[in-house]
Formats: sequence, C-alpha cells, structure tokens
Amino acid sequence: MMSQIMSRRDLEFLLFEWLDTEALFERKHFAEHSRDVVEDLLRLAERVATDHFAPHNRAADLAEPRFDGTLVELIPEVEPALRAFADAGFLAAPLSHEAGGLQLPSSVFGACMAWFQAANVGTSGYALLTLANANLLTVHASPELVERFVEPMTTGRFFGTMALSEPDAGSNLADITTRAEPQADGTYRLFGRKMWISAGDHEMGENIVHLVLARTPDAPLGTRGISLFLVPKYLVAEDGSVGERNDVVLAGINHKMGFRGTVNTAPVFGDGAFTPGGRPGAVGHLVGTENRGLPAMFTMMNEARIGVGLVATALGYTGYLKSLAYARERLQGRPVGASPDSPQVPLVEHPDVRRMLLAQKSYAEGALALNLYCSRLVDDIASLDDPTAVAEAEKLLGILTPVAKSWPSQWCLAANDLAIQVLGGAGYTRDHDVEQHYRDNRLNPIHEGTHGIQGMDLLGRKVLMDAGAGLAVLVGRMHATARRAEATGDPAGVAYAEQLSAYADRLVEVTGAIGGLGDQRSMLADATAYLEATGHLVVAWLWLEQWLVAAGKDSTFHDGKRAATRYFFARELPKTGPLLDLLAAGDRTTLDLDPDVL
Amino acid sequence: MMSQIMSRRDLEFLLFEWLDTEALFERKHFAEHSRDVVEDLLRLAERVATDHFAPHNRAADLAEPRFDGTLVELIPEVEPALRAFADAGFLAAPLSHEAGGLQLPSSVFGACMAWFQAANVGTSGYALLTLANANLLTVHASPELVERFVEPMTTGRFFGTMALSEPDAGSNLADITTRAEPQADGTYRLFGRKMWISAGDHEMGENIVHLVLARTPDAPLGTRGISLFLVPKYLVAEDGSVGERNDVVLAGINHKMGFRGTVNTAPVFGDGAFTPGGRPGAVGHLVGTENRGLPAMFTMMNEARIGVGLVATALGYTGYLKSLAYARERLQGRPVGASPDSPQVPLVEHPDVRRMLLAQKSYAEGALALNLYCSRLVDDIASLDDPTAVAEAEKLLGILTPVAKSWPSQWCLAANDLAIQVLGGAGYTRDHDVEQHYRDNRLNPIHEGTHGIQGMDLLGRKVLMDAGAGLAVLVGRMHATARRAEATGDPAGVAYAEQLSAYADRLVEVTGAIGGLGDQRSMLADATAYLEATGHLVVAWLWLEQWLVAAGKDSTFHDGKRAATRYFFARELPKTGPLLDLLAAGDRTTLDLDPDVL
Repeated sequence: MMSQIMSRRDLEFLLFEWLDTEALFERKHFAEHSRDVVEDLLRLAERVATDHFAPHNRAADLAEPRFDGTLVELIPEVEPALRAFADAGFLAAPLSHEAGGLQLPSSVFGACMAWFQAANVGTSGYALLTLANANLLTVHASPELVERFVEPMTTGRFFGTMALSEPDAGSNLADITTRAEPQADGTYRLFGRKMWISAGDHEMGENIVHLVLARTPDAPLGTRGISLFLVPKYLVAEDGSVGERNDVVLAGINHKMGFRGTVNTAPVFGDGAFTPGGRPGAVGHLVGTENRGLPAMFTMMNEARIGVGLVATALGYTGYLKSLAYARERLQGRPVGASPDSPQVPLVEHPDVRRMLLAQKSYAEGALALNLYCSRLVDDIASLDDPTAVAEAEKLLGILTPVAKSWPSQWCLAANDLAIQVLGGAGYTRDHDVEQHYRDNRLNPIHEGTHGIQGMDLLGRKVLMDAGAGLAVLVGRMHATARRAEATGDPAGVAYAEQLSAYADRLVEVTGAIGGLGDQRSMLADATAYLEATGHLVVAWLWLEQWLVAAGKDSTFHDGKRAATRYFFARELPKTGPLLDLLAAGDRTTLDLDPDVL
Repeated sequence: MMSQIMSRRDLEFLLFEWLDTEALFERKHFAEHSRDVVEDLLRLAERVATDHFAPHNRAADLAEPRFDGTLVELIPEVEPALRAFADAGFLAAPLSHEAGGLQLPSSVFGACMAWFQAANVGTSGYALLTLANANLLTVHASPELVERFVEPMTTGRFFGTMALSEPDAGSNLADITTRAEPQADGTYRLFGRKMWISAGDHEMGENIVHLVLARTPDAPLGTRGISLFLVPKYLVAEDGSVGERNDVVLAGINHKMGFRGTVNTAPVFGDGAFTPGGRPGAVGHLVGTENRGLPAMFTMMNEARIGVGLVATALGYTGYLKSLAYARERLQGRPVGASPDSPQVPLVEHPDVRRMLLAQKSYAEGALALNLYCSRLVDDIASLDDPTAVAEAEKLLGILTPVAKSWPSQWCLAANDLAIQVLGGAGYTRDHDVEQHYRDNRLNPIHEGTHGIQGMDLLGRKVLMDAGAGLAVLVGRMHATARRAEATGDPAGVAYAEQLSAYADRLVEVTGAIGGLGDQRSMLADATAYLEATGHLVVAWLWLEQWLVAAGKDSTFHDGKRAATRYFFARELPKTGPLLDLLAAGDRTTLDLDPDVL
C-alpha cells in the first residue's frame, strides 16, 4: 500500500529527476555521499517516521503536555521516538564534518525531515529545534562551546531551543528586555522572561540548551544592541559532565489549538528559583560577539524559515494523501443525471471533489518543490566553487526565503481545509487525522516571522533595499524556464510559457511602480499582497519546471504532474491578477483609514 | 464598554436604517409588533446571551459532552442557559400565533439569535434545532401532533432534533435506508441508524422529539420514496403526559474539532434496546403524507440554511470585535521608519493589521446584511398581500439561499482566520476565544448541505432549471441599486455602481455560456466557482446598499460603513474576475481528469 504520510515517488522525482541531486556528490563538499546512500536514508526516514512517529501523533494531540509547576510531562511515546530518530543518525546528518555531522545536503535532509513532520509534527518539533540550535552554534560559537554542547545534541543527549520572543516583544525583537550581566569569569548572568518558547522544558535527555537573545548593560537601543547567549538548563563543566541546575524555570506553558505535541513555554531566567554557584542569575555563555546576536540568529533564519515552510508542506501533503485515499474508497452519490437505482460512486468521481484533490496536489507538491529548490540553493552556496554562481544563489535564496516560509504556510493550510471538506462530516471529527493537520498547520503563518513580517522582508529588504537585483535574478530564471517550455513546441507548454512570462513582466512593472511611490510607509503598506502575488508566480514557475521534467515521460505519475500543472495555470495563477492590479493602483484604503471607524 | 459579542448599533442600522423593519409592523401579519418591542427584545437577547451563554462558551469546549453508553452528560451550565432562553420567550418567538408563538419577523428573530450564536454557538445549537423542528411541525404536522409536541417545545420542556443523515447517506439523502413499518393504530415502527445528529440525546428537559427521514415498505427508490416521522425519545400520550421510553438509543457520539458544546450523535432506531408497548421498534408518527418527506423537509430548508449562514456570521462577527479590541490595546512595533527609541504603537496602527481588520469587518457585516436581507424576504413572503411581490420575493429568496448559507460559511471562517492572525501567537492559544471560533466555524461549510452542494443548488436548481428567471430578478435588483448610487453624483458611488453593474452583466453573460455547454455534467462541473463568484457579487451589492444608507450621515459608525464598502470594492469584488473567466472559458481540467493520476 502507498504510504499516506509522504510520497517516496515524488521525493525521488524532485531530487533526482528534477534537481539533479547526484551532481552535488561530484562536488568536494558532498563527495562522501551518493545516490544509493540518499535512497537508503529516505527509506530509513520513511521507516522510522512510520514506525515511531506516526503511531502517537493523535495521542500527543489528545494528551497534551502538562506542567505541574515544576516538571513538564509528555506522553511516554515521545522520548523513544526521538531516540530512534537520533539512533538513525538524523540529529547529526545535516551538521558539518567538523561538528561531528554527516554534512548531508540540505535538500536531501529536507526530504527526510518531511517524513517525520508529516507523521508527527509535534514530536518532530523537538528534533527540529535541536538541529537548528546545533547548526547555529557550529557557525557562531567558539570551538570549545561547540564541543561541550553540540556533540551531545547530535546524539540526542541534549535538546535545544531558540528563545527569542518575550511577552512584550514578539514580532518586534527590537524591544526585548532580558538582561545579560557580564561576570569576571567571562560568563554572563541572565535575567528576564521569554515567551512562546517551543520545547522550552521537558524531562527528555540530560539537558536543554537554550539560545537566548538578551541585552548587555549599556547596549545600544533596538536591534543593534542584542546579543546571543547559550544558557543550559543544567550547567556543564568543561569536561562535559552535567552539573547543577541553572536558574531557568517555567512561568507556565501555553495551551494551543494545535501543534500540541511540542510543548510551548514561558521561561523565566534568573529569578532565583535556583542559585548556581550560590547566587541567582542564569549562567550564560556569549555566542559570537556582543551586540551581534540578531545577525547571528539571522544567518540561520533562511534555513529556519524554509524549515517552517517544509513543516507546513508536510502537513498539507499528508492531508492530501489521506483525503485522496478516502475519496477513492468512500461511495457517495452518483454522477449528475444518473438513475437513482444505479450504484453510488466513489467521491473521486465528482468534479468538485476532483477540484479539491487537484488543488491540494498542486499546493502540496508545489510547496515541496519550492522548499527543496530553496534547500538546493543552500547546498549550492555551500558547495559551489564559482563565486559568481554562489552570489547568484545567495540572491535567489534571499528573495525566495520569505516565499518558501509563507506560501506553504498559507496554501498547505488551505490544502488541509480542503482535505477536511473532502471527508465532509467525518473530516470534522477526531476519528480522522485531517482536522488535526489543519489545527497543527495553523501555527505556521504565525511563528518564525508572521505572514505580514514575511511580506515586509520580501518587499522591503529583499526587493526594494536590493534595488531589484534579487528580483531580476528570480525573473530571469522564470523567463529561462518559459523559454525551455516554449521550445518543446507542445501547445500546453507554449501557453504556460506565455502566461508565466506575462505575469513575471507584470510583477517587475508593478515593483517599479511601488518603488516610485516615494515614502516607505506607502511602499510597504501592501507588502502582504506583494508576497502573495510573488508566491503564486514562483510556484507556477516551479510547476512549469516539473512539467518540463515530466515532458515525454509516459506514466500515471508524470500524468499527475501534467494535470496539476494544468490546474495551477488554469485556476491558481490567475488569482495573482487582482493582487497585481491592486498593487499597481497604489490603493490607499488601509493607509487612509481612521482606525476609530473600525 | 462596547460588547465584543455582537454590535447592537449595526443590528439597528441594518433593521431600521436599511431594511425599514418598521414597515413590517404596518402589515396585518406582524401588526402586533412595534419598534419599541423589537428594541426591547434585542436588548433582552443581548442580556441573556451575555449573562447566560457567553460565560460557559469555553467551558463547553473544554469539557465536551460525554457518553457513558447510556446517558449523555453536558456541563451543568447548559440547561439553565437554555432555561433562561426559553423563559425570555425566544423558543416561542418565531412561531405562528396558531402554534402558540409570537409570530416575530424572521429578520428580527435572526438579529436576536446572532447574539446567542456569537456568545455560545454550542449551547445555541439545542435551541436552534428545537426551533427548526417546531417550525417544521407547525407547517406539516396534524394539529393534534402540533398540540402534543410543539407546545412543550416552545416552553423548553421538550427539545428537538433533525435526523436526516445516515452512515452511508450524508450528502446523498436518496440513499437512506431507515425503514418505517405502518402499524394498525396508524403509527409506524422505525428501524435504522442515523449519523451526525446534533443534540441527538441529553438529559435536559422532559423529552426529545426527533424528526426522522425513513422509507415505508415498497416506497419508490431515491428521493421520491422518503417520508418524514416524528419519533419521541419518550412516548407521549394524547393527554400530553410523558410515558415510557421509546426504542431509540445512541450507538455513540462523534468527537469534533469544534462546535463541541452541541453533542453530535449516532442514534439507532428500533434495535430493541427498549420495547415500547412490549416489543422492539421505535414508535413514530407520520408528518404530512407518505413519500413527501423530503419536500416537507425542504420547505424549511431555506430558513435552515439562512440559519447556518447566520451562525457562521455570528462567529465571524464576534471574532472581528475581539481582534479589533486586541489590536487597539496591544502595543507592538513602530511605524515604518520610526526611531527605535520611540514608543511602541498599538497593532491597529500597522497597515497590514488594518487590512486584516477591514477584511473581517467587510466579511462579518456583509454576511450579516446578507442573512438579514434573506430573512426579510421570508418576512415579505409571509406578510405581503400582492401575489406578484410575493412571487418575486420567493424567486429572490430561492436564489439567495445557497449564497446566504455558503458565503458566510466561507468568509466568516476566513474572518476567524484573520482574527487569529491579528492576535499572533496569543490567537493560537486557548487563552483567547478566536481559536475556538475558528474551530467552531469550520463546521458550517459542511453541515446542512456542503459548500459543493450549495453550488449545485444555486447553479443547477435555482439558475439553470429556472431558465435564469431568478437570476434576472437578482441582477435587476443589483442594477437598481447601482442606479441609485449613480444618482448620488458622489464619485465613489458612481465608481461602485459601474463596477457592480459590469460584474453583474458579466455574470449573466457567463451564465448564458454555461447554459450553452449542453450536457449537465459539464454545466455543473464548476458550480462551486459559480457559487463563489455570485456570492462576492451579492455581498458587493449589499455593501453598496449599506453605503447608500450611510450617504450623507456623518458619524464614525457611518464612516466605518464607507470604509468597508471601499475595501470590498477595491479588494474583494475583483477576486470574482478570475472565477468568471474560468467559467467563461469552460475549463475542463477537473472533467477530463483521470483520477488514477492523483
């Protein structure tokens, strides 16, 4: 039976038929790997996800983490699942050789992670945060800290968190107030409250490594005065032995609509609950240099945001597969005009159900292509020798990152909505997984930079501040794809190529009009519309890429790629029109609004 | 403080400034009522909803109904809330004088119900089903059954259900298999299983009256062989005394994502768990005539569907008010370009947050206008003397009903999604109501005819089978509104009028093209797109109606109506363009699809 978690066939299509992942193994950076190794790893991911993650997905939702004032209690299935994940080597896989990792390409690792996230997003959260934490430390921390803290994370002995937000500083990190006071021995003592910290406490493993944003005394105001600290739950001696409890406790945990398996916490640093070395204050180690905490955090932001996009994608994907399986099985109704004594037909026979399935397919597979394409850019940046090619990949990755985070978060949530609708009343009950996927996925447009923040990042930072250079690279790639589609001579390909090129040109034209508005507030007022228009255009482009790969290949799988491409160009890309019109018109409805009239 | 449940000001605007509800009181049918009475009732609804329904909304979600194999247990707050509702007279209010009711206009009653649904949709469910049940019986049951069963429902002694769906017949009622065997005494014995029956069992009141669709022996196949039966939980003697338990039990209850306060059940009729009169079989009374059960059920369908639309609207509306209050209070971030040492500003100052609030306002207030407009048509049909005017109102109500059900279900859910997004991480937690509204509202596109079924009803039954007559009435009203807007000479009104007329003409043109497709399957393949295009156009029309009412009135409230109209015409109506293009093109993507390629 085909898995309803992810599609191995599609992952292989994207990695090997499209992205030519084998080319990576010819480069020095990834020379240790091979297609065989990657295929084995994908099968391993499928097996561990299927056997250890999927079985307790619902249980972790129903019995959400509890906090008794001291300890966070998770259901017992979580720790052995993460143990299996670590034992299979996935906690070390993406890290560099120097950090004790396998240096696996990001695109391959993403394909593996999709299995775990689709199987059980809550349990995957602990792994994802540990990986992000370790990844950041390997780049920015001293070798001594890496040795002391990263190595235990690669084997699952320590877990990690990212502690950025505070009760009064969520989207706006410039306003964080947690203090870090330098000590004579080179460490710091931290005091302050954090909020929305996933995996912020639990009893798994031997320790939890928090990466905490805080301000040193006399640090400049705003984002230029933020430093990054490593604050362990238990102090770790230089020989690696785990010692006394640090002054970090929880004020409480948050009770969420979904994503319940990953505990979400409000930690307090330095309120004296514990007194390491005989006095209050959470002991922290500076990572990198003072006041450079945010840039350090942001070097990982591209990957973290692509990672969130992949989580959304995985949830959209598994919801699609489950609703498809249901629609093939469930008999309900008859074709229009059929006699009442004819047998009922499967749901999949109804055009409106097909629409909902094709839409899901186009969102989930389109989002997966986008995420893996971005991960491939990460791999190219890490492995290419030609500095021009690296620079171009960096430009492209920069502009695509907000899209890779936000588009799947929006449209794979829409996919989950459609999955519920395909199942009807059954889809609304907890007897089926799709309602949980919908609740779980609703987090993704919020965390790691909200949808609105992604729009500002794309239009403000990646397009306008860059004077359109990144956009030019992106649109150049779209035109190149269109030319290849046109060259096939296939009427469908020619039509797609024309449509894509026309929208791409329109985006450039509209961007020029926005740039001409003059004041920043006007320029950025509809950054979200800009993000959404760009997102649909990017995914249309990647569907045309997939259509090209499928060209001339005769299988139901490749026919599916053609059908989804057709769907996306007929029914999704045109939604971009009104958004571009709005941007071109410089509509001031929201800017002119007196909020008192609301 | 302004209520965050509903807006009394907006209800008064719609009823008195726009719909001229006072004109109803000059008609014989509603002559007992007056504006004063209605205003008192609205205040009463606000008070009972605020004091008795809102306080346990979250509790009913957290402690969902339990079934121990025999009894359904609800939290203790539900019954007194419904008692307060009954004591205030709301269970009798919409029923005819003959049935012991107040004969309150449907539009006024809808405005009252919005308070309860927004305050606590789960508890309101019991009242809504009882009202729908009683309403149907007053029209179709014998006077003797009305006296025995309806009167106790108007005082809250009995509760009601509607038992249509079965495990294998949800959207397709033609396939129901529950049997009804005629007995010598004129009663029937019912045998079969139902599914998705809301309020199907509980311990409130003295009895539960099920309205059950079933087939008599030798009934014709399909929808022409379905009869309607009244099946009480406890038998009721002719003198009204409640007697022995009928043979109706639960196979189980369904555990839903939301709307948890209303227990959803799988009842079993006639499996011998009880033996009324000494033998198995659920005793039922025929309502109306044999084989005419579905038409009887469908005479109430318009009102039931408008009712579902109103539930969706109420949830969207309260979510809007709550996210607006949050956005006014919560400080986060600064205007683009502001210095980092300037104070943080309320969320409502950010253009993207204003977009999310204006969108919610345009959806919730637009949906409320739509629901009350339809209810007003119900009132006109009941109270107008002129048969031509009644016929026109019936045409218009017929075509608007699927829109009044589906548009709020889609867009007020979208409003709840935006309410979560305005609150950010907080909105995703159970510390705030908006996540519950979102979960609760997700039911509305499913029950009482799915979104897809509404599309088939609109395009197939209400437009094509009617040869466009209903559509002509609708479009005629749109043009009339446009002419009035044009006549104001206000440039905004003139522009709205042009935009509305152009889209309305386009809809007629596209309808002609669909009618010309020839085969039914092709014509109906994109009924959902047709529904969605029509819906946005209808709501644009009703926004222009509201804009006209506000014209020349100088208050922040009326400015709000102008701002939302501007928003809807600038940013929502244009979304209709791609849908109409798709329909005009006769796109065959879903029709041509080989489902094996999915």
